[in-house]
Amino acid sequence: MAIKIQEVGPRDGLQNERTLLSTEQKLELIHRLVEAGLRFIEAASFVRPEAVPQMADADAVFRGLRRRDGIVYAGLALNRRGVERALQADVDEIHLSLGVTESFNRTNQGTSPEDNFQAFLAALADVRGSGDRRRPVTITFSVAFGCPFEGAVDEGRVVEWVRRAAEAGFDEIILADTIGVADPRHVGRLVRRSREATEGRVPIGVHLHNTRNTGLANAYAALENGATTFDASVGGLGGCPFAPNATGNIATEDLVYMFERMGVATGVDLDALIDVARWAEKIVGHPLEGMVMKAGPFRPLGARRP
Amino acid sequence: MAIKIQEVGPRDGLQNERTLLSTEQKLELIHRLVEAGLRFIEAASFVRPEAVPQMADADAVFRGLRRRDGIVYAGLALNRRGVERALQADVDEIHLSLGVTESFNRTNQGTSPEDNFQAFLAALADVRGSGDRRRPVTITFSVAFGCPFEGAVDEGRVVEWVRRAAEAGFDEIILADTIGVADPRHVGRLVRRSREATEGRVPIGVHLHNTRNTGLANAYAALENGATTFDASVGGLGGCPFAPNATGNIATEDLVYMFERMGVATGVDLDALIDVARWAEKIVGHPLEGMVMKAGPFRPLGARRP
Repeated sequence: MAIKIQEVGPRDGLQNERTLLSTEQKLELIHRLVEAGLRFIEAASFVRPEAVPQMADADAVFRGLRRRDGIVYAGLALNRRGVERALQADVDEIHLSLGVTESFNRTNQGTSPEDNFQAFLAALADVRGSGDRRRPVTITFSVAFGCPFEGAVDEGRVVEWVRRAAEAGFDEIILADTIGVADPRHVGRLVRRSREATEGRVPIGVHLHNTRNTGLANAYAALENGATTFDASVGGLGGCPFAPNATGNIATEDLVYMFERMGVATGVDLDALIDVARWAEKIVGHPLEGMVMKAGPFRPLGARRP
Repeated sequence: MAIKIQEVGPRDGLQNERTLLSTEQKLELIHRLVEAGLRFIEAASFVRPEAVPQMADADAVFRGLRRRDGIVYAGLALNRRGVERALQADVDEIHLSLGVTESFNRTNQGTSPEDNFQAFLAALADVRGSGDRRRPVTITFSVAFGCPFEGAVDEGRVVEWVRRAAEAGFDEIILADTIGVADPRHVGRLVRRSREATEGRVPIGVHLHNTRNTGLANAYAALENGATTFDASVGGLGGCPFAPNATGNIATEDLVYMFERMGVATGVDLDALIDVARWAEKIVGHPLEGMVMKAGPFRPLGARRP
C-alpha cells in the first residue's frame, strides 16, 4: 500500500516556534521541501492573526508560492471563515481540525466539538459547491489519544467521530496525538478500529508528536495497522531538545529514514531533506530535535581487515 | 509474558561518556537505580583498562556495592580473562558479547567471531564449574542489525549464531543494534526467527541505541515479537543530543514510560527514575537524550470548563 508523507513543518512546526519567520523564509522552506521530494505540504493555517501571529501571512505565503504540478499545497482552517480565506488563497486541499474533547476544543477553538463539526459540514458543502476544481477536504481529530485537561480519551468516542466524518464525505481522516502521550498499542488499535468503522473507504492517517520519544514507535504501529498518511515536520520543527514544553512533530527525515530502511518507499531524497533540516535549524536559531540530521543515514565504511 | 528491563547505564552508558566518574559516583548511580525499582543492573565491564579507562575500577565497583536481595548485579566480559575477573568480583550474572561480523569483532575484540565463541564456550564451562552458586551467563550478539564496516548483516548468519548459543547452554541471548541502524520490521523479524530457532527455550532480548530515533520503535517491535529482555540506560547515558557520533542507548525512563502506557508492567517507579536521570545529567555535565525526563509523564490538568 502506498503511503503519503505530509510535511507540516511550515504550519504546525513554525506555529510552535518562537522565531517569527518572514514570508520569504517560509516560501524558501516550502520550495526546498518540494525540491527534496515532498509532495504534500501543509503550507499555512488560516486562523486569526491575533491568536497565531506566526500564521498572519498565510494569504501572502499562498500568493508567493512557485507551484509545481503534482504537488499539493494545503491550508488548515478551524472554522468556516478560515475555509473561505483558504478558498480565496486557492489552496489545493483544505485541512480541518477538531478537538475530540469538550475542554480542549473550547479552549483551542472557542466552541463545542459538536457545533464545530456542524460548521465543518457547512464548510464542506461550501467547498464542494465552489465549483472550479475538486479540492479535497480532510479532517484531523486532535487530542485523540489523550487530552491535557481531561486525560484519557475514550476510544469508542473517537471512533464514533471517525465514522461520522467518513459518512459526511471527508476525503481523509487524521488521528492526532496533539500532546505526545500516545503509545504504539493505542495507536495501532485506534487506527484499526477507525479503518473498520469506515470499512476502508477513507484513508486514515496519523499526526504524531515526539514529546516523549514514542513518535516513531507510534508511526510504525500506525503503518502496520493500515494508516496511509503520516504528518511530520522537517527537523522536528516546533520542538527543541531542551525546552520541556516544546512538543515537536516527528521529524520528517527521521520518518523517511525509518520507512526506507523498512522497505517502504517515500519518494523523498533523504540527503536533500537532511540539508533542508540543517538549513531550517539555522533559520529558527536553535537546535532541532531530529536525529538523522545529526547522525546521518547509515553509510558503512567498507570492510576493514585489520 | 513478564519482561525484564536491564539497566546498562553504569556500563554501556558511562563507557561512552567523556566524563570520568569516580567509583563513589558510579556506586551512587547504581544504588539510586536500584532504589527506583530496577532489578537488573549491568554494573561494569571487566575489560583492559588501557582500552576502556572508564571501566578501570570495575573490581572496586563490585567491592563497593551495597547488595540487595533480589537484585542482579551483572558484569560484562569479552574474553576468558575478563570472565575470571568477573568471578573474582562475585558478579551475579556474566554477560558476554560477540560481534557477528569478522571486521567488527576483530576491530573491537582482536579476534575472529569463531575463535571468540570458542573462548566463550570455555568460559561458560569455567563458570558452570565454579561451584558455589549458579551464575547465569548471557551472550549478546553485537552489530546484529548492521555493521559499521560491512554494512548489511545477513539475518540467517545471526540466526545461526543464536541457534549455536542456545545449543551451548547460554541463559539468555541478546540481539544488539550497536550502531543504531535497525528498523522495527528488521528487529521484529530477527527476534521472531531467533525464537523459532531456539524453540522458545532461551529468553531473547534486545540492546538498542537511539542514534537515529528508531530506538523505541525497535523496542516495541521486539516486544510484540516475543523479546522479553530490554537493555536501556538511564537518561540515555552515552549519548548527547548534539554530538553526531554519540550513540546513546535507549533511555530507560522513556522505555518504562512507553511500556507502562501500553499496559506492560515494569516494576519501576517512573518519577523516581526521572529523578535519577536528572541527577545523572548533572554528574556527566552535559544534556542527556532522554525525553520523558524533560517533558515529564502524562499528568492531565483536570477538566477545564471555560
